[in-house]
Amino acid sequence: MAFETRLQLYQRSAEAALERWLPDATIQPQHLHGAMRYAVLGNGKRIRPVLVYATGEAFGVDLAALDGPACAVEMIHAYSLVHDDLPAMDNDDLRRGQPTCHRAYDEATAILAGDALQALSFHILASDDAIQVAADRRLAMINALAVASGSRGMAGGQAIDLAAVGNQLNIAELENMHIHKTGGLIRASVELGALSSPTAASDEVDRVCHYAHCVGLAFQVRDDILDIESDTETLGKTQGADVARNKPTYPHLLGMGRAKQAAADLYQEALDSLAGFGPQADMLRGVANYIVNRNK
Amino acid sequence: MAFETRLQLYQRSAEAALERWLPDATIQPQHLHGAMRYAVLGNGKRIRPVLVYATGEAFGVDLAALDGPACAVEMIHAYSLVHDDLPAMDNDDLRRGQPTCHRAYDEATAILAGDALQALSFHILASDDAIQVAADRRLAMINALAVASGSRGMAGGQAIDLAAVGNQLNIAELENMHIHKTGGLIRASVELGALSSPTAASDEVDRVCHYAHCVGLAFQVRDDILDIESDTETLGKTQGADVARNKPTYPHLLGMGRAKQAAADLYQEALDSLAGFGPQADMLRGVANYIVNRNK
Repeated sequence: MAFETRLQLYQRSAEAALERWLPDATIQPQHLHGAMRYAVLGNGKRIRPVLVYATGEAFGVDLAALDGPACAVEMIHAYSLVHDDLPAMDNDDLRRGQPTCHRAYDEATAILAGDALQALSFHILASDDAIQVAADRRLAMINALAVASGSRGMAGGQAIDLAAVGNQLNIAELENMHIHKTGGLIRASVELGALSSPTAASDEVDRVCHYAHCVGLAFQVRDDILDIESDTETLGKTQGADVARNKPTYPHLLGMGRAKQAAADLYQEALDSLAGFGPQADMLRGVANYIVNRNK
Repeated sequence: MAFETRLQLYQRSAEAALERWLPDATIQPQHLHGAMRYAVLGNGKRIRPVLVYATGEAFGVDLAALDGPACAVEMIHAYSLVHDDLPAMDNDDLRRGQPTCHRAYDEATAILAGDALQALSFHILASDDAIQVAADRRLAMINALAVASGSRGMAGGQAIDLAAVGNQLNIAELENMHIHKTGGLIRASVELGALSSPTAASDEVDRVCHYAHCVGLAFQVRDDILDIESDTETLGKTQGADVARNKPTYPHLLGMGRAKQAAADLYQEALDSLAGFGPQADMLRGVANYIVNRNK
């Protein structure tokens, strides 16, 4: 119960901070700003901001100092969804139960909105006064996010994913794709939360990053399971879309039973990497559980 | 003659630094890295890196310390060209005399290559060891580039430009579009060059930024003139494309004679804003002349 309450606090904090950082839709160019807001605000799960807040709190950081990093990772995530949904990529019409950005606006605006959201996320990290760490640590945050979202992180993972459609991947290749595509940004969320503490030691940062590695993979295994076992209304996106596209998935490669076991094993490994942390890390533990057992 | 020699030194420095920072095309994902290299390397004019070097030298900064900022602005510029050329935007087949990125590769790869180039440019600014200023000044560089390339800078300018096709703009609206679309990044190039100096005073930074404002507009006026007076082979892009698309241009709004006068006036205003600078700023003066008199 305490977990649910605090989770909602994180989600509300993220929502309010995103609202503050996004340019108002009355500011020129209005159409572009409207599309940026459309792409970010609404009923996202905010898992990456939640990880920023939970990790920051594990190191004793105030919530307000975590708003900026939480917004930065969520805007990178939101821009990647907008671009991934484009006709030239996954060609999706539905996202979070709503028309995708290029459907609600147009393709050109969706491309530009994604581009501008990426720039905004670095603007936030470079300029947010509420971030309490020294400038060199802030640079480390910016660098972590840039690497996680670039060609050897998220964008590279999407390229590997596109190249894999219709191909047979083995489990190692599938994992490599996910470590890049979603794992990099999930790890960066945790890293930014940890770096928001002026005092987090490098071995502590390493341990929460290993937690993030496990949680990131578990998240993806769960996503693949939900694509098969859930329905479109609950998911807010088209159920069975991955299977229909012949995309490689964990249940496809491992069978459903072993896929569920893999998620459970990753959850345990995530908890183990937090062994040296006290009750301050309970939200991180709860988030791992939440990710592995979510229904959408 | 001295100007030409030094200009070539800047261009060669930029080319070598871009080659160093771009991931090798043998690194996975190879297709994406190949597209990123294709989009950046080759026969670009490198006007933005040249402005970084020339401004840095006006403040006594070593060339090596300017390589990173020069690469960062050029990668933002290159990504914007890749995205602007896409079918959903300008739908161009030719760029710098070569097939555009989405023609040489494919649309999805071109979108991702642009996204990854933007991330790479912030990675460079956040991590390049050759940058010699304190961390807080480096943050100011990152912030300047993020603002210049975002929704209130370059991406916003492109949105205004797309909305303007087929519409009648007046000269103030046209200028507003260009100040965002190309002016922001040209100004950021100069600002990053100035901020690369640990000692540049804020009023000096303001003065070179005004120089950049004038040079940026002059650059665009010249571009519009060349679209009419040059030919496809010299330009390396389709001559007459703006006129064919009914895009608003300076010659269209002012007539050719007054457009040329506007370029000359902006050139003079750029020189005037450098009045307090000595011979160290001669390259900046030369670059203004080069921009206003270029043939491609």
